[in-house]
Amino acid sequence: MRRLFELCAADRDVRFSPYVWPVRMALRHKGLPFESVACTFLEKEGIAPSGGSTFPVLQEEERWVPDSLAIARHLERAHPERPLFGGALGLAQAGLVHALILDRAIRPLFPLIAADVCAALDDPSAAYFRATRTPRVEGSLEDAAEGREDALPRLQAGFAPFRRALDAGSFLSGDAPAYADYGLFGAFQWCRVISPFAPLAGDAVMNAWFERMLDLFGGEGRRAKRAAA
Amino acid sequence: MRRLFELCAADRDVRFSPYVWPVRMALRHKGLPFESVACTFLEKEGIAPSGGSTFPVLQEEERWVPDSLAIARHLERAHPERPLFGGALGLAQAGLVHALILDRAIRPLFPLIAADVCAALDDPSAAYFRATRTPRVEGSLEDAAEGREDALPRLQAGFAPFRRALDAGSFLSGDAPAYADYGLFGAFQWCRVISPFAPLAGDAVMNAWFERMLDLFGGEGRRAKRAAA
Repeated sequence: MRRLFELCAADRDVRFSPYVWPVRMALRHKGLPFESVACTFLEKEGIAPSGGSTFPVLQEEERWVPDSLAIARHLERAHPERPLFGGALGLAQAGLVHALILDRAIRPLFPLIAADVCAALDDPSAAYFRATRTPRVEGSLEDAAEGREDALPRLQAGFAPFRRALDAGSFLSGDAPAYADYGLFGAFQWCRVISPFAPLAGDAVMNAWFERMLDLFGGEGRRAKRAAA
Repeated sequence: MRRLFELCAADRDVRFSPYVWPVRMALRHKGLPFESVACTFLEKEGIAPSGGSTFPVLQEEERWVPDSLAIARHLERAHPERPLFGGALGLAQAGLVHALILDRAIRPLFPLIAADVCAALDDPSAAYFRATRTPRVEGSLEDAAEGREDALPRLQAGFAPFRRALDAGSFLSGDAPAYADYGLFGAFQWCRVISPFAPLAGDAVMNAWFERMLDLFGGEGRRAKRAAA
């Protein structure tokens, strides 16, 4: 028995979390079947046994694992075939790559799409999200998104390390995708599912990579339901 | 014949470049003997065959390789024993780890110690350095360093991904050092060699790691000559 607890919007088929998507892709990568359990921001009873209070959480039989990177590391140890990190050294350094993805994609994207996330949630979750996330941006969530097209050049300049990595291969991880790709994919899939904002507009190298990512595993990412604009 | 062209200060035994140190450590890691060629910022004739104009440059027989990360990748391919990156996946992702080290160590340290770098150079190199580097900081090089102790909490907060990686092992790369460690070591060794500023003061986890790094290869880093304060 393997269950992935993942965040959902008011439409429970809309799964948008930038931290859940990497785990979903990692499970597909390893060919591990799983049952998905959709939870709103406030539906935390199901994940209480994990000891954590954020999504994703993975349950495998008796074992509960919270935190996307911890889940990926657990999957790699428990199911070593089809590696996500390429050995002990990659496993050790995974947190450094994750930090770069946070710094250069997830954190700078957050203020630009937080209002869209909020608008897609059911009312109690939206109230919770607004109260807890507004302190992280300048002004209101809506203020933070205003004129976001103007933020594009600076945002895309920050993707330079990813573009450079893609100079050498089709994926950040070389000729085939691995966890670094799924980590970064989470950031852009978050945006794609929940917001009309297009962070990769005009960025040919990153766009081509993202399209390749959307095609993986029979179009797992491409098939995902998007919030109504 | 293997030669490493490395930056030197007015005292030619003082080797301070944050980009050269990782290559020096990588060569020791692989047990490859080399001849060091000291060059000031303005002594570029020797590296002209590389096509680059910055240090380090590695020459191996007929082959000239500029750029620290490119040199490390070349060493890994040409001398695969004692791996620096742990396979194709690690090699592909090395640029992402390098970008994190730039973002969170080398770039934030630069304004704090640039005046010390300048003070250690011979006069023509100092004039060149001041002219080319002042635009990268606020005010003069000396202004940028003023009150640098106050920058310590924020600087060290930025080391969080490195501290987290060290939770799991003695080195960023696990139980043994590899290129990620040498990359980050370059940043702090730069500082140690050229400046009295102590970016790791009071940071027990990072300090313990840096001391371990200084001990490697018979104290290669610890033995390095430091600029007179």
